[in-house]
Amino acid sequence: MTVTLGNRSTIPAPRRGSGVFERARTVTEPALRAAVDSLPPTTRRAVGYHFGWWDSTGQDRSGTPGKAFRPALVLLAAEAVGGTPVGMAAVAAVPAAIPAAVAVELVHHFAQLREKNTTVSRRFGTGAAVLAGDALLALAFDVLATTAHPRAAAATHTLGATVAQLVEGQADDRREDVRLDECFRMARRRTGALLECSAGLGGLFGGGTPAQVAALRAFGAELGLAIQLTDDRRGIWGTGHPDLRHRERSLPVVAALASKSATAERIADAYKTKHDLCNVEAHELADALDADGWREWCVTESERHLRAALDQLEPGITAERRQDLRAIARLVGDRDR
Amino acid sequence: MTVTLGNRSTIPAPRRGSGVFERARTVTEPALRAAVDSLPPTTRRAVGYHFGWWDSTGQDRSGTPGKAFRPALVLLAAEAVGGTPVGMAAVAAVPAAIPAAVAVELVHHFAQLREKNTTVSRRFGTGAAVLAGDALLALAFDVLATTAHPRAAAATHTLGATVAQLVEGQADDRREDVRLDECFRMARRRTGALLECSAGLGGLFGGGTPAQVAALRAFGAELGLAIQLTDDRRGIWGTGHPDLRHRERSLPVVAALASKSATAERIADAYKTKHDLCNVEAHELADALDADGWREWCVTESERHLRAALDQLEPGITAERRQDLRAIARLVGDRDR
Repeated sequence: MTVTLGNRSTIPAPRRGSGVFERARTVTEPALRAAVDSLPPTTRRAVGYHFGWWDSTGQDRSGTPGKAFRPALVLLAAEAVGGTPVGMAAVAAVPAAIPAAVAVELVHHFAQLREKNTTVSRRFGTGAAVLAGDALLALAFDVLATTAHPRAAAATHTLGATVAQLVEGQADDRREDVRLDECFRMARRRTGALLECSAGLGGLFGGGTPAQVAALRAFGAELGLAIQLTDDRRGIWGTGHPDLRHRERSLPVVAALASKSATAERIADAYKTKHDLCNVEAHELADALDADGWREWCVTESERHLRAALDQLEPGITAERRQDLRAIARLVGDRDR
Repeated sequence: MTVTLGNRSTIPAPRRGSGVFERARTVTEPALRAAVDSLPPTTRRAVGYHFGWWDSTGQDRSGTPGKAFRPALVLLAAEAVGGTPVGMAAVAAVPAAIPAAVAVELVHHFAQLREKNTTVSRRFGTGAAVLAGDALLALAFDVLATTAHPRAAAATHTLGATVAQLVEGQADDRREDVRLDECFRMARRRTGALLECSAGLGGLFGGGTPAQVAALRAFGAELGLAIQLTDDRRGIWGTGHPDLRHRERSLPVVAALASKSATAERIADAYKTKHDLCNVEAHELADALDADGWREWCVTESERHLRAALDQLEPGITAERRQDLRAIARLVGDRDR
C-alpha cells in the first residue's frame, strides 16, 4: 500500500491548540481511507464500521471523526526537526511524514480492536474483531515499509518493537497484588509506547538527527504517562466513575491500595466481588479517594510527567520549533481522545 | 529485528526429497529463534510454547521440530532464480532469502494461532493466543522490512497483501449454502496466498526478474490448492475422519453437496446437528462419498493443480533450476505438515 505524498501546497499551516488535530485529520484521513479501501470486502467492511465511516452493511454514515491525536503528534514532531530527510529531494516535513501518521493511527485502531466489547465485536463477533485488528496491523507495516523514504526500514523496526510492547502490555494481567511499579510499566507499554513511536517516527520522517529522534521518543513516552494519569483521574472522578464501577486497577487505585489506609481496605473489599459496583458505592469510594488526596496525586504526577516530557525537547530542538509540541502537550489536561 | 545473513559456507547444499525441509529448518531456525528472543517476556513465553520449544514455564523441551515447508519453498524459489539480487554485492541466493523464509514462517504460525483450540489458547487462554499471534505478525514485518535487501519494500508490500488475503479467508464464514467456487476462493486465501507469497518472496530475494517472480507466485498459488485438496482428502478418509466428524464444509464435501445425490442429502441431514458426528456415522459417510467418486475427485483435482503449478515454471525458469521445486511439489501427495 503506497501512500501518495500530499502536494505541499494542499497542506494547511498548523494552528495552535486543537487546530493541530483538525489539520492532522485533514491530511491523514484520505491516505487512511485509501489504505482501508485496499482491503478485501469482508475485512474492509468490519474495519470501516470500526472507524465509524460506514454502517454494518457498508453504507456511508456521517460519524464524528476521531481526534487524530497520534497523527498530530507525528506531524508536529516532523515539523519540529523540520528538515528535508537525508537522501531525499526537497520534500517538506509534513507530507513526508503522512505515511508514518497513517501507520500509527492504524496501530492505534488495531489496539482498540483488541479491547473487550468493541463496536465490531458486538456487531460482527469477537473473531471478526480479531481479524479486523490483524488487517490493520498488516496495513500499518505495509504503509510504512513501502514509502520511498530512506528511513522507512528504521521506522518499520521501531513500529515492530512498539507493537511488541503494546501486546506485552495487554498480555500482562492485572493481578490482585499488582505493584505500582508494575502498573506504571504496563502504562508505559499500553499508552506510552505508541506515543513514543509516534513522536519518534515523526522525527525520523522529518529528517531529525539521532539525538533529536531520541529526544522526541522520550518526549512521547513521558507524554503517554501524563495522559494515562489524566485518563485514570477521569475514570475515577468523571461521570459514572467507570473505572471504579468496573473494578479497574488503574494507577491511582493501585497507589491507594499500596497505602494500606482505611480507604485501601474499603477498595480491596469492594473489588472482591465478581460484578460491577453500583453507582452509589463507586461514588462513595471516589469521595474517599479524593479525601485521601489521590485526585491531587493524579494531577501532580501527570504534571510531573508533562514537565519531564517538555524537558526532553530542550537540548535538541530550538525554542521556536518546540512551540507546537508544547501546545499539544498542554492540551493533555483537557483532551478527549 | 535484523536477521543476520548466514555465512555461505555454513549453508548445506540442498538435497532432493525431504532433505530440502531439513535444510530449510537448519538455516531458518536460528534466525527464527533470535527473532522470538527479541520479544518481551510474557509474549515470548506464549510464542515459544506455541513453537514447542519451551514448556509453559519457559523451560526448554525437546519437541518434534516442524517441517519448515514454507521456508523450504522460499529458499528453493530463491535458488531457482539463482542469482545475486540487483544492487547487492555478491551474496548467494539462499542466505539472502533467509529473512523472507523467517517472515513467512512467522506468518504461518500467526495464522495457526488464529485457529480455534490451539495449544496456547488451551494453556494460556484465547486472549493470550490472539496477542501471541499479533506479536508474530509484527515480527514478520520487522524481519522482512529491516533487511538491507533492495527488494525489502516490495517484499513487505507482498506480505501485507498476503496477510489481508489470509485474514479475509478466515473471516469468510462457511455458510450452509456455500458454493464450490466460493470454497475454492477461500482455499486460495487461506492456503494458497501464503504459498504464493513464499515462492514470490524467494524469487524477489533471489534476484528474480518480474516475470520469474510472477511465475513463482503462480506456482505457489496452484501448489496451495493441490495441498488443500490433499489435506481435504485426508480429512475425510484419514484416520478418524476428522473433517466429517467436525462437520467441516471442505472442498470435496461442498462439491458432493452440490451434486444433489442421495449422499448429498445424507450429508446435509447429518450436518444439521449442532454437535460432532460419531465415528460410525462419519465412517459411513466417508464410504458413501468414496463410492460416489469424491476421493478420486480429490486425487484428480489435486494432480491437476500440481501440473498447473509446474507448468507455471516452464517459460521463465530453466529445467535444471526447476528440479528442486518439482521435487518439493511432488512431495505434496504424501506430506505431513
